Amino acid sequence: MLNRVRSAVAHLVSSGGAPPPRPKSPDLPNAASAPPAAAPEAPRSPPAKAGSGSATPAKAVETRASFSRPTFLQLSPGGLRRADDHAGRAVQSPPDTGRRLPWSTGYAEVINAGKSRHNEDQACCEVVYVEGRRSVTGAPRELSRGQGLCFYYWGLFDGHAGGGAAEMASRLLHRHIREQLKDLVEILQDPSPPPLCLPTTPGTPDSSDPSHLLGPQSCWSSQKEVTHESLVVGAIENAFQLMDEQMARERRGHQVEGGCCALVVVYLLGKVYVANAGDSRAIIVRNGEIIPMSREFTPETERQRLQLLGFLKPELLGSEFTHLEFPRRVLPKELGQRMLYRDQNMTGWAYKKIELEDLRFPLVCGEGKKARVMATIGVTRGLGDHNLKVCSSTLPIKPFLSCFPEVRVYDLTQYEHCPDDVLVLGTDGLWDVTTDYEVAATVDRVLSAYEPNDHSRYTALAQALVLGARGTPRDRGWRLPNNKLGSGDDISVFVIPLGGPGSYS
Amino acid sequence: MLNRVRSAVAHLVSSGGAPPPRPKSPDLPNAASAPPAAAPEAPRSPPAKAGSGSATPAKAVETRASFSRPTFLQLSPGGLRRADDHAGRAVQSPPDTGRRLPWSTGYAEVINAGKSRHNEDQACCEVVYVEGRRSVTGAPRELSRGQGLCFYYWGLFDGHAGGGAAEMASRLLHRHIREQLKDLVEILQDPSPPPLCLPTTPGTPDSSDPSHLLGPQSCWSSQKEVTHESLVVGAIENAFQLMDEQMARERRGHQVEGGCCALVVVYLLGKVYVANAGDSRAIIVRNGEIIPMSREFTPETERQRLQLLGFLKPELLGSEFTHLEFPRRVLPKELGQRMLYRDQNMTGWAYKKIELEDLRFPLVCGEGKKARVMATIGVTRGLGDHNLKVCSSTLPIKPFLSCFPEVRVYDLTQYEHCPDDVLVLGTDGLWDVTTDYEVAATVDRVLSAYEPNDHSRYTALAQALVLGARGTPRDRGWRLPNNKLGSGDDISVFVIPLGGPGSYS
Repeated sequence: MLNRVRSAVAHLVSSGGAPPPRPKSPDLPNAASAPPAAAPEAPRSPPAKAGSGSATPAKAVETRASFSRPTFLQLSPGGLRRADDHAGRAVQSPPDTGRRLPWSTGYAEVINAGKSRHNEDQACCEVVYVEGRRSVTGAPRELSRGQGLCFYYWGLFDGHAGGGAAEMASRLLHRHIREQLKDLVEILQDPSPPPLCLPTTPGTPDSSDPSHLLGPQSCWSSQKEVTHESLVVGAIENAFQLMDEQMARERRGHQVEGGCCALVVVYLLGKVYVANAGDSRAIIVRNGEIIPMSREFTPETERQRLQLLGFLKPELLGSEFTHLEFPRRVLPKELGQRMLYRDQNMTGWAYKKIELEDLRFPLVCGEGKKARVMATIGVTRGLGDHNLKVCSSTLPIKPFLSCFPEVRVYDLTQYEHCPDDVLVLGTDGLWDVTTDYEVAATVDRVLSAYEPNDHSRYTALAQALVLGARGTPRDRGWRLPNNKLGSGDDISVFVIPLGGPGSYS
Repeated sequence: MLNRVRSAVAHLVSSGGAPPPRPKSPDLPNAASAPPAAAPEAPRSPPAKAGSGSATPAKAVETRASFSRPTFLQLSPGGLRRADDHAGRAVQSPPDTGRRLPWSTGYAEVINAGKSRHNEDQACCEVVYVEGRRSVTGAPRELSRGQGLCFYYWGLFDGHAGGGAAEMASRLLHRHIREQLKDLVEILQDPSPPPLCLPTTPGTPDSSDPSHLLGPQSCWSSQKEVTHESLVVGAIENAFQLMDEQMARERRGHQVEGGCCALVVVYLLGKVYVANAGDSRAIIVRNGEIIPMSREFTPETERQRLQLLGFLKPELLGSEFTHLEFPRRVLPKELGQRMLYRDQNMTGWAYKKIELEDLRFPLVCGEGKKARVMATIGVTRGLGDHNLKVCSSTLPIKPFLSCFPEVRVYDLTQYEHCPDDVLVLGTDGLWDVTTDYEVAATVDRVLSAYEPNDHSRYTALAQALVLGARGTPRDRGWRLPNNKLGSGDDISVFVIPLGGPGSYS
């Protein structure tokens, strides 16, 4: 996320009461002695949803440590200090001894080169048990007293403008997903199509109203087919929104600083769901083939969505911004001349006569890693950022950010996976300097050096990927073997073997 | 387009002063004796553009015939009568004798089986010369006195709720494109990157202001790279909008009835631009391989755009519609129960408690060919429809429709094309009953039966495609060889050989 939140970052970090950034200052005794993150606060059950009227907001009391790393790293105070050392940038992985991550997942991370106080990436890897609510479908009790469901969960959270949002999301997002799935436990285990409508009172089916089994109404020729899969997708989507709403509630006490991208994987009933909101990335490498499992959401990829919103709700632009895009800043002396522009409906460019309004700053500007919304933020989806304002202004940026992920589904049962088939998740620190093909080549190189049944091979692969993106320190910064600059950003990588859920310990 | 505009069609047709539909009535003496379409009205130069202040609206006086077919069909009065015969459904193509279409393009069409008065598809195929405006870049006169540009143009227009919009678009859209390109003639022929900013007065470059050559400003690290290709894309996009605005102006005199999908191909300087707004489709069949060159815009494919607009501008929904989607109509007795729904940010489904507002009709409902916006229209992009209202209501539907095409670009110079490589354009009458693979198989079958240098092979192919979608009359309607129903819709097909521009006559 480094470089993707401009001056607003410094503004927010310095105004948030946190100590100012201390680039390249390796000794952080306070951080080292800090306790690990407080026990996760579960959202109340179920989380508040506009219009659902079924819950009160979870008012988790935030008593966060100033700095934490994923608990599965099992860091000692000394280890935590090394993990926080911008000079050494030691790669961190779970210890060889002790409990392995589910599915023998590999993980590695490294802190940035000094641009932010701590590593603002966070990660989570959990097996989550979902207990069903009492017969939501109104089925007879004996049928509804079934088993609960387990899902496997991996999450990468790339924070910006402070570590609070990423830390909170890493503790709580999977619990929001669990809450959303509670109503679906029975339905997902029933091979028949999901009921379109559920009776009012759980356990007391309204036998006089079989409407959820009704055929088409007059205005539809048929009712829409809704799959089990799409219910899980909907559950994940709403969990992201509820997580974001919880951050909004709690930031009123100024407790949640910054925002974060979120890349989440859920394995449930044979399918892998990859949900991405931000600029992290997931790819599957299967038999050497690359299968993209996410796309990035940035001012460039979401330009038209952002411009449309600015066009429909000009009040969100204040008097400072224009929803039109120009290829460079328009100068006052160019008034009346004609300049290239793009409107929200255009993918091409055309000339327009420059008017006074065009002298405003464009809502979207810049290219690549330097693209920005409102000259401030370089990602357009994620959690948090409720406090984010345009630099030297009171204009909020949050209305342009979406907390909704794009969810892609991969059916694990449709293909016989071998131990070298993996799902790789990485924050942008990895992908800024590594192509999908380079990752696939590293997968091949590293895994072939280990026995297929050696569980440490996936951690070794994650470490190799992080090292390959970080590079080694030389006279002018961290350099890759080709002498290009390595990533100075936080880098975090999960390597999830697809050989099958049976491979977890 | 048949079946895609529900009762609103009948409403509009009958209220537009046109005679009521006469299904399966083959003799249309009035239509047969009608003169061909009036000479095209060119848009004034340049067309009005919000903010450009450089033009007055083109007030074309519409004196359209009640029925016309593309002039390149060169239909005699008797031929026009046969083309308008719902019972015989004779396939129409340009005559063997006479001038061939550019590039030896093949074309065939057939009228619907009786659902609308006339064939509401229209087509256009032209070579258009673009004369440049006087030195828009401010270059010295001797440099700017260059050649104009030619582009090749093919358009299919699938009308609904009346034939006026399709007929008007077929006469004028390429002229709007020409107007948009006039400013670009010089720029497109100059290999250097397009200037970002043009001086105020043509021919008098402001030598004291070289700002269009300036490097990055402080807020951009570099100016955006704008390609020649993206200027052509922008020109086509804006031409669609200006065409739509012209229809809006002229319908005030109640002259432009209905709306139309538009699928347009422009060949310019080595590249093929395929612009699609609606549910027609273009594919390239190259060496047997299928390359999609468009996608369809329907209530299903554009659900989230429509819902977002309804969410941001609830006044557009009146008190009649909800922006939420439900898998079937919600019944009043289900108030308080929980039903599956999708909001604008969701691709999955979730349950929500039904409230009073949810009893409104959903903005988007139905599936496949039966999907509708506001229970009325089955396509979400196109030209016209400025009068279209929700059935039995004054609520306008136009705000939800987009006139902007998606433009895809295919570089003809990147591949050595053989005479069997073709670009196939078809209205939905073709694609409703024909897969891309079936089209590719027909391409192979028909073209292999003709010599490569036989110019009639592309017309034979277009005819085979139309016949294959229409079927033959049997006891219960038009049937395909597999006994499935053929398309009862208007069907129109262009087959454009990609063997090279040199192949045109």
